[in-house]
This record gives sequence, C-alpha cells and structure tokens, in this order.
Amino acid sequence: MTDRTTLKRLPERGSHDRETIHEILDAGLVCHVGIADDDGPVVIPTLYARDGEIIVLHGSPASRMLRTARTREVCVTVTLTDGLVLARSAFHHSMNYRSVRIFGTPEEVTDDAEKTRLLDVLVEHLVPGRNPALRPMTRNERKGTTVLRMGIETATAKIRTGGPVDDEEDYALPIWAGVVPMSITYGAPETDPKSKVDLPVPDHAHALSRR
Amino acid sequence: MTDRTTLKRLPERGSHDRETIHEILDAGLVCHVGIADDDGPVVIPTLYARDGEIIVLHGSPASRMLRTARTREVCVTVTLTDGLVLARSAFHHSMNYRSVRIFGTPEEVTDDAEKTRLLDVLVEHLVPGRNPALRPMTRNERKGTTVLRMGIETATAKIRTGGPVDDEEDYALPIWAGVVPMSITYGAPETDPKSKVDLPVPDHAHALSRR
Repeated sequence: MTDRTTLKRLPERGSHDRETIHEILDAGLVCHVGIADDDGPVVIPTLYARDGEIIVLHGSPASRMLRTARTREVCVTVTLTDGLVLARSAFHHSMNYRSVRIFGTPEEVTDDAEKTRLLDVLVEHLVPGRNPALRPMTRNERKGTTVLRMGIETATAKIRTGGPVDDEEDYALPIWAGVVPMSITYGAPETDPKSKVDLPVPDHAHALSRR
Repeated sequence: MTDRTTLKRLPERGSHDRETIHEILDAGLVCHVGIADDDGPVVIPTLYARDGEIIVLHGSPASRMLRTARTREVCVTVTLTDGLVLARSAFHHSMNYRSVRIFGTPEEVTDDAEKTRLLDVLVEHLVPGRNPALRPMTRNERKGTTVLRMGIETATAKIRTGGPVDDEEDYALPIWAGVVPMSITYGAPETDPKSKVDLPVPDHAHALSRR
C-alpha cells in the first residue's frame, strides 16, 4: 500500500492497461475525491460509476465538493482491498489491493437526456437490474441533482498480488506466513419496515448476496 | 454518501463523538490521504492504525506522499461501507456508511523506541496477535521506514444508517425497497507456497476469518 510494495511484484502488469483500469473501476462502488481549495486538501467519499471512458459523480447542487470540483483539478482514487499479506518480518507485511487514480477537472452535465442516462448508469452500477423497477425520475429530482463527468484516459492502476516477499534468510524461520484473502460480501436483503405493500425481494436484490 | 444524505437521518448522533470516531478508525484498515502539492491534490490509499488520540502512517523514506505530508496540511479519510440503500426512486438510493475525516500536518517520529512501538501498533491493527510471532525488527528496517503521527482531536465522523427515506407518496408504490447489508469478510488463510518449514496456520490468522 506504500511506495515500497507498489508494482514491485508485478512490474510487467501495465499500470495504464485499459482493461485492468475498467475492471477495477467496475468492481468498486465508492471513490475518494481529493479537492484542494484555498484551505488545503479535502478527501470525500462518494459513489461513482464508469461509462466507457468517463466516470460519473453526482450529488446535491448545494454540495461544496461538487461546486469546487467543477472548477479545479481533482484526484479520484478507487481502492479495492484483496488480502492481508502476513510476512515473517513486520517490515514485509503488506496488503494485496487494486487501486486506480484519476486526475482531471470534472465537467457538469447539463443536457437533461444525458443527465438522466448517466443517473441510470449510476443506479445500474450500484444495483444491476434495479432501474426498470423504479418510478421515473421527476423533473425536480433531475434539477435537484448535479451530475459531473470526468475522463479516465489518463488513469493509472496500482496493484499488489501474491504472497509475502521476505528476506531470503527468513524463509527458513519457524514463522507461518501467507495471505488472508478479503472481500466485500453482501448479506440477505432487509425489507424496509415502512413498506405499505407486501412485496417479495426482487431477483436484483438477491443477486447482490450471491455475487 | 453525498451532502444530501449525510447525517440527515441521525442529526442526534454527534459527529465529534470520540467513541464513534475511535470505533470507525479501529474498524478500518486503509485510509485515503489527500495531499495538495504544487501540481494539485493527490489521494493515496495507505494502511494506518490508531493509537489513542493519534493515527500512525508509515512507508518508505523515498515516498513522495510521506515527504510531502510532513510539511503540509493533509486530509485523511477512512470510509466503511455498510450497505446499499434501495429506495423506490433512483433519487433516494443511497449507501449506509461510516466515515471519519481528519485534517492536520503529520509529524515524523524519530525516536527509535517510539518508532518501534508505533510499527508494532500498525501490525497489531492489521493482524491482532501477530507481533509476538515475528522476528525482531532490524536497525536497517527501522531506518528504512518513515513513521508519521497525526492528532485526531479535530476528527469528524459522518454516518448514514437505516432504510431508505422515500417521498411520502412513494411508500404505497408496488416497488420493493430495503437495505442490502455489506461487509468485509476474510477467507481461509493461504500458506505461502515458498515456505521452507511446514507450520500450522496460527490462531491469529484463523481469527481474521472468524471476525
């Protein structure tokens, strides 16, 4: 997770490889947006989705993050944690992860049809198959949502995979070493207790718990 | 995840509550550090640990992140994702999450004993119970690691919990709504195939898969 481990084990894995970058962005849900205003840097977690060679961000028009992001360069980072790397020395402990970093100045999407399409992309990324079940978006909701797009052409990926890389002489020590894999898992869908209609859990909600 | 949902549902939950902030920091492993240098903001994922009212960061002395962080204000954000909130409209879709944001200028730890202690804290946070199993840290390893500490007295938490908050008239629509919980889970430990000694998986590694 530091310069020490980054890409050392996989120098052959292109950090600008499009497919790798797309895979990581499609597997994450939350990005961390870094904005530097006059008071210094701020890092804000927010949902995102990828649409081809752009990522989409959204929020309230009142959001300081979105208002600032439209006028300044930001850094958007997505990180997936894949495992704890338990080495024989504290020094070589590490984490397996996949991370993408994107620099750019987001652009506001003002066209109504494009805004609606990109908000659909966001919901589809969050819960695949959910959109057709929803009531249509109202004009006020669309007006009440700022949508930003930012190109990912210059994105870079950093990845660490594999087991610990210990000092040669340490492999003979009687110290167990290896990897403990980690992943995000989804639990059983919990129906809103405020529902006024008794409805079965739809497939698209169950599907999350299976992926 | 946006200004729209943040703390709206739980205005009574103090965003400066120490216990809440400690709990969130103790439950996370990776923070996103935002640094603004002359080229703009950069957001870097890195491991951290909490020690009382400070957080500890570490890395290679060659790390640009660590060198820059010692001289400028940074923003450290930790985000835990707890669930997808499926509302009846796209507009009210959200995420349950817990996030802590800390502003400050990290300070380098130069005292050898304190450096060793804080590196132990980092390993203990990553894998509780691991430290006693490891060979002692060498002088060169300590020299080859930069350790930074930063106070968390001014940290703030943002939390969203609970089900969707839909428009009143939407509760009667025949659209399933609810929460799909999400969490990080650990798989079975995978022994390093390069091990020269045949050793059982220790309890502290198994324990991760049970938590």
